Amino acid sequence: MKPIKVILGLDPGYARLGWGVIAVRGNEYRLVDYGCIETHKGEELPQRLAIINAELEKVITQHNPDEIAIEELFFSRNVTTGLQVAHARGVIFLRAVHHCGHIYQYKPNQVKQATTGVGNADKKQMQEMVKRILNLEKIPKPDDAADALAVAITHSAYSR
Amino acid sequence: MKPIKVILGLDPGYARLGWGVIAVRGNEYRLVDYGCIETHKGEELPQRLAIINAELEKVITQHNPDEIAIEELFFSRNVTTGLQVAHARGVIFLRAVHHCGHIYQYKPNQVKQATTGVGNADKKQMQEMVKRILNLEKIPKPDDAADALAVAITHSAYSR
Repeated sequence: MKPIKVILGLDPGYARLGWGVIAVRGNEYRLVDYGCIETHKGEELPQRLAIINAELEKVITQHNPDEIAIEELFFSRNVTTGLQVAHARGVIFLRAVHHCGHIYQYKPNQVKQATTGVGNADKKQMQEMVKRILNLEKIPKPDDAADALAVAITHSAYSR
Repeated sequence: MKPIKVILGLDPGYARLGWGVIAVRGNEYRLVDYGCIETHKGEELPQRLAIINAELEKVITQHNPDEIAIEELFFSRNVTTGLQVAHARGVIFLRAVHHCGHIYQYKPNQVKQATTGVGNADKKQMQEMVKRILNLEKIPKPDDAADALAVAITHSAYSR
């Protein structure tokens, strides 16, 4: 019997950081947990990063993932937003390397390809496939969490 | 007698992170220590961030600064470099907030203004003034460390 691997997928952001944990054995996928770490507009970026760090550490401690995967930074039209997401990713990388020694990165089209079989699928199709692959009754909410689960599924597909 | 305040100034980067510690009492400045945290090209960004985190933590533990200041991200022509610096800044913010609860940020022209009295001074003039203000025999090397000391001096000037 193949071993079970626990994968944490992340959809990075500084206002909303989606996370999703799946357990994989061979071709079998099971949802473990998912959620979204939120930080408030009123807080300054350094404080928001401290919250992301503490909350992500809780998720990692609770689920003890074997591997952590994240979506590559897709260049936003808004430079300021892109830079703030990069600050958050710095914190995320730190937590991931601290726990697993490595973090796996996937481009948005790789995530679409791995979940739907089509590199230019839309978000809705991708979330529908996350639901089917994990055998869920509903699409996980919020979108950030569904996207994070898609990243975890992608990592599993690429690392097989 | 006024209390002595210890300030850590940082010139952020992911390949080279300059740092400088000064002690200030009223108008009196004294150099405490300075250096540059370096990471290697051959390493991946997450590993480089882990090194920055660990080395910066050592500097903070050793010098126990009352306040930490950093240069604002000046948008680089190279987007990839700018984003990687932003990742490093995320880690730096985290360490600073963890130690002091806050991090002070200054624009490059504020640093030039505070050290030389001129907002468009060149790097060489600024470093010369760092040397004079701190009453040193030579300009601190490498440049990253001299720039970090300039940021610490700037913070002291602005917070007076």
